[in-house]
Amino acid sequence: MVKVGVAGYGVIGQRLADGVALQKDMELVGVADVAPTLSVRALKEKGMPYALYTAAPEKRDELEAAGIPVSGTLEELVQKVDVMLDATSAGVGAKNKELYAKYGKKGIFQGGEKNSVADVFFHGYANYEKGLGAQFLKLTSCNTTGLIRSVDCIDRKVGVEKVAITIIRRVADPGDYHRGLTNALQLERAPSHQALDLMTIMPHIDATGILIHTPVTHGHIITVVMTTKKEISKENALEFFGEHPRIRIVSLEEGFLGNASLFRYARDLGNPRGDMYEIALWEDSIVKSGKDIMYAINVPQEAVVIPENMDAVRACMGMQKDRIEATNTTNKYLGIGKWKSLD
Amino acid sequence: MVKVGVAGYGVIGQRLADGVALQKDMELVGVADVAPTLSVRALKEKGMPYALYTAAPEKRDELEAAGIPVSGTLEELVQKVDVMLDATSAGVGAKNKELYAKYGKKGIFQGGEKNSVADVFFHGYANYEKGLGAQFLKLTSCNTTGLIRSVDCIDRKVGVEKVAITIIRRVADPGDYHRGLTNALQLERAPSHQALDLMTIMPHIDATGILIHTPVTHGHIITVVMTTKKEISKENALEFFGEHPRIRIVSLEEGFLGNASLFRYARDLGNPRGDMYEIALWEDSIVKSGKDIMYAINVPQEAVVIPENMDAVRACMGMQKDRIEATNTTNKYLGIGKWKSLD
Amino acid sequence: MVKVGVAGYGVIGQRLADGVALQKDMELVGVADVAPTLSVRALKEKGMPYALYTAAPEKRDELEAAGIPVSGTLEELVQKVDVMLDATSAGVGAKNKELYAKYGKKGIFQGGEKNSVADVFFHGYANYEKGLGAQFLKLTSCNTTGLIRSVDCIDRKVGVEKVAITIIRRVADPGDYHRGLTNALQLERAPSHQALDLMTIMPHIDATGILIHTPVTHGHIITVVMTTKKEISKENALEFFGEHPRIRIVSLEEGFLGNASLFRYARDLGNPRGDMYEIALWEDSIVKSGKDIMYAINVPQEAVVIPENMDAVRACMGMQKDRIEATNTTNKYLGIGKWKSLD
Amino acid sequence: MVKVGVAGYGVIGQRLADGVALQKDMELVGVADVAPTLSVRALKEKGMPYALYTAAPEKRDELEAAGIPVSGTLEELVQKVDVMLDATSAGVGAKNKELYAKYGKKGIFQGGEKNSVADVFFHGYANYEKGLGAQFLKLTSCNTTGLIRSVDCIDRKVGVEKVAITIIRRVADPGDYHRGLTNALQLERAPSHQALDLMTIMPHIDATGILIHTPVTHGHIITVVMTTKKEISKENALEFFGEHPRIRIVSLEEGFLGNASLFRYARDLGNPRGDMYEIALWEDSIVKSGKDIMYAINVPQEAVVIPENMDAVRACMGMQKDRIEATNTTNKYLGIGKWKSLD
Repeated sequence: MVKVGVAGYGVIGQRLADGVALQKDMELVGVADVAPTLSVRALKEKGMPYALYTAAPEKRDELEAAGIPVSGTLEELVQKVDVMLDATSAGVGAKNKELYAKYGKKGIFQGGEKNSVADVFFHGYANYEKGLGAQFLKLTSCNTTGLIRSVDCIDRKVGVEKVAITIIRRVADPGDYHRGLTNALQLERAPSHQALDLMTIMPHIDATGILIHTPVTHGHIITVVMTTKKEISKENALEFFGEHPRIRIVSLEEGFLGNASLFRYARDLGNPRGDMYEIALWEDSIVKSGKDIMYAINVPQEAVVIPENMDAVRACMGMQKDRIEATNTTNKYLGIGKWKSLD
Repeated sequence: MVKVGVAGYGVIGQRLADGVALQKDMELVGVADVAPTLSVRALKEKGMPYALYTAAPEKRDELEAAGIPVSGTLEELVQKVDVMLDATSAGVGAKNKELYAKYGKKGIFQGGEKNSVADVFFHGYANYEKGLGAQFLKLTSCNTTGLIRSVDCIDRKVGVEKVAITIIRRVADPGDYHRGLTNALQLERAPSHQALDLMTIMPHIDATGILIHTPVTHGHIITVVMTTKKEISKENALEFFGEHPRIRIVSLEEGFLGNASLFRYARDLGNPRGDMYEIALWEDSIVKSGKDIMYAINVPQEAVVIPENMDAVRACMGMQKDRIEATNTTNKYLGIGKWKSLD
Repeated sequence: MVKVGVAGYGVIGQRLADGVALQKDMELVGVADVAPTLSVRALKEKGMPYALYTAAPEKRDELEAAGIPVSGTLEELVQKVDVMLDATSAGVGAKNKELYAKYGKKGIFQGGEKNSVADVFFHGYANYEKGLGAQFLKLTSCNTTGLIRSVDCIDRKVGVEKVAITIIRRVADPGDYHRGLTNALQLERAPSHQALDLMTIMPHIDATGILIHTPVTHGHIITVVMTTKKEISKENALEFFGEHPRIRIVSLEEGFLGNASLFRYARDLGNPRGDMYEIALWEDSIVKSGKDIMYAINVPQEAVVIPENMDAVRACMGMQKDRIEATNTTNKYLGIGKWKSLD
Repeated sequence: MVKVGVAGYGVIGQRLADGVALQKDMELVGVADVAPTLSVRALKEKGMPYALYTAAPEKRDELEAAGIPVSGTLEELVQKVDVMLDATSAGVGAKNKELYAKYGKKGIFQGGEKNSVADVFFHGYANYEKGLGAQFLKLTSCNTTGLIRSVDCIDRKVGVEKVAITIIRRVADPGDYHRGLTNALQLERAPSHQALDLMTIMPHIDATGILIHTPVTHGHIITVVMTTKKEISKENALEFFGEHPRIRIVSLEEGFLGNASLFRYARDLGNPRGDMYEIALWEDSIVKSGKDIMYAINVPQEAVVIPENMDAVRACMGMQKDRIEATNTTNKYLGIGKWKSLD
């Protein structure tokens, strides 16, 4: 049993903890945070299924004043685990890394940290092998994680030369009050970092893109214009995408009209928090552009990176040597892709 | 075991089915719908925990073409149950009532139906006794249900003379594509029907109100200006509200900044679909207006009526004679109010 | 001709400048700002109808690098005028006040400044006389300005004892990217500052209220529950409101469904920037609550304070001694209320 | 003087009327509508600068009951003009066409009508010559009009082979209450009609695209991945776009962060209704994708088609034979491109 701790019990941290708790070959030792946030209060109301450690011992009394039992400090947690999943705010991970290094533990960071925090910039499907045995890994951000699933999947079949993406980004998560847009679309300077990140993971592909923030909360939509080495038909593309365990093929006809349909569907499935680990790919969006192929995916930003984080634990701890074996194990424990299998 | 069926497997119908399934003294016989909606598709992906009956036998092939097993017709379902919870679209319930009457079954309708569909306009706390043994009941709509909880609770303590409410209404549910507002507030003709409905249930109170639609999906907020028979302080009000099992006292300081915080908190609690049965009442919102009291509540529109529907089954089937016994039984099975009790 | 300058050329400052330019008995000497904002760039594209002064001489080159002619410094502008209208960001006005005092000039501040910045907290209709000859005035904020118009109007007829208000606040202006809410309602701690401000201007009235931010940009809506000294009917109220030059009576039937209808209507009227100086009061919103009266108004947040600012210039410069004469003069030059007259 | 009438006085119709009124070589005879809408009420409050004709004589009394003077019927208007600009709801234009044909008048229809309504599917820059002397023209819709400006502009320089577009569509106009999305992105079946329409106008180009509706009101954003016959640099592209009178080059650095910035800027310019005739093209959005070029434009949906409609009058009436002469004349009268010129 690989022992895992989670630093930062926010949107991603909570889901990482839940994800680890589902892996039968991992043990969640505890989670760390600094203040009695709503997420921490919910943990308490649920009866503390996970032990909470304080990442700010000087503010331990704030937690206790809110009636939240504290099992120790982050530093104590680090000593009890094999690997830390760090989902703290951008920049904090780099500081925490010193602690992980001090005790010789592995650390896995999220997309908000600088690349320099890690030895390997990691994606479970695209470069699993690079993560094998590494001490510090950084995961791609939510958009890049979802995007790479779809690009890697075609790349392994027929080769991908270049992609030009348009990211229609949800600007905040449900419940966010510290950021938001009201009746406005907002452009980021091109090329988007997601395109650059894709090239870091998959250096043989030319990628660029434009990102537009939109005032919604339930999932990013990305359109991709992809030039393949060998031309493929819409039917080929659909077949290849359909084989990927972490891509769910959906259609307008079924009622999947947009990102909000997918959020509703995940709630109706009874998924905890209404989360979905898979990206969705609309069958109705696939079109040919000359020899290129164009399509649209939906990226559920809160949960999409959880599977690849589990893959990262497997890689850095050497739990599986093989990419397919590792991702399939993650998928099995998370309940992904029960209706299909990659190999 | 009281046998219950649910007609209409949409936003409310799904939650009614889940609610009935949790009641240890009721049995969910099945649910009925007409088409392979996303909700029905999710039921199938979950492995059909509930049997599905078709309310439109002539379109049974559409369901089967989508791979959804059909256990029979709505008419067959009606014959197997003691009481039907009808959550079909407004107007359909009146038609279904003929079917329920044909087989001598009880029927419970939702707020969208006309009052004339039912013998009793019902609220679990405010007029439980009126529902005892009745054949056809109609529940109050989501806003009225939540509002009455707070008004009844004070009324039973010190008497309420009049209320003037402002309903800041969420215009659509998460996942709705058939209705919506974009960057607009919309006024309804005053007085709002919720104020009129309150007076139907509590005819000794003078109620009026103004309703404004707002472009959000995660819960209505209602402000209430209440004239009590005996003047009460803010502290009194807080104490009375705090005793009610279906009212959750929250504060800005804890991080409950608005309707989206409550939705997030319910998700983080792990509640199915991120639902919450309780209304929330902000401690920070309670103020005195001369001798009157003013406060604000949050009404989670998707789930708030579920407990009162369970109460309605109890009333019409005579499962409990007493208001407190009945509502407490509902609360126990739904997991509401484990931290406090009314009596 | 009273000589006027405007400090801060943002949402309010631009409209103040336009408003002054329309007053035939005032002269707009110039406007001051610090950076080549979009508003300043638009001023340039229009051919500099107003002279621009820099409020940050050390950053004058930034303005000039953007091709914007600079006529001097804020300090130079102050020396040329009789009165400064200060629409800078909250807190800056207090600093600017020293400059106005240094040269013995009058200063008029906006609602964002602390009350202590001014000798008189001012509203053109409610307490015009207090502003006569004062050196430093502070205007009420947009919501309070609009609200007081409606309360003062009834108060002068039959006396107002208390009001309980619900403010459904637009969270950002069109074009704002530095603030916003996405799919969320947000509560402020009660009582709202607008209720407290009303009591400062009208100390004989008991006021309280709750404010909810909503994700829209085109106008606040306020509901008011008002206790009058002498009971009035809906018809009385409508008559009194209808006499006020800065209140526009509208109805759902005409097509005024909400705040966005009013914004559209103002654009279709050809009003500069699609602005409206009047608040709107829905005929369909007026209802009785026992002996109280309840109604809803729309407050166009970008322009509503402009008339009262013009009134403030009139008061502090002693241009008119009489409240009605002053406000009517403002109204005439701004084109308000051509269809009706207060006296 | 060419005599022009406008049928349908809504979002587009009002702006067509204003546009015609600005053309010194055209005369606006009148506008027609059916009901006392807000736009018609605004016309009345402005003092009827345009004569109003009724398109539904049987409902003339509704207009008159609202105090709106009626100058005659649509049929009478048609007889007085040379050409009708038809901006009625989709489908009505086809019916009106019979009336135009009956009196041998020209008719210009908007993008919502079927292509079959017209002899020529028209764009002022891309195929002006086809419209010369034609009796019935149909304009491209707002997105297609803006998109073609940018594509035609490059096509005439170096040739365009194919484009793959992503349309991030504003779902409603400011003031719309009959349509809207709340916290949802919505996909349309690909390829989008705008791509197909582009190919109808420019059959030598291969176009496809995906359209996503977003809950905003102030302008569409389109990203374009363009394959040119001769490769061009970012600098080339910027130069070519910059020469087009109806394309405004903007940048994030200036403060143009998105569609709402452009709406605010147009208001601050003092443009009637806060309208802008030009599309905006972000300098910061232009990137290379292999040999392709990628960029983003903003399309102000309410006003963008007005210039091309004026061009259409010029073409069908033979007022100018030459594309550049015609469009420049339109531009001069509308005040477009005073800072640059195409020829």
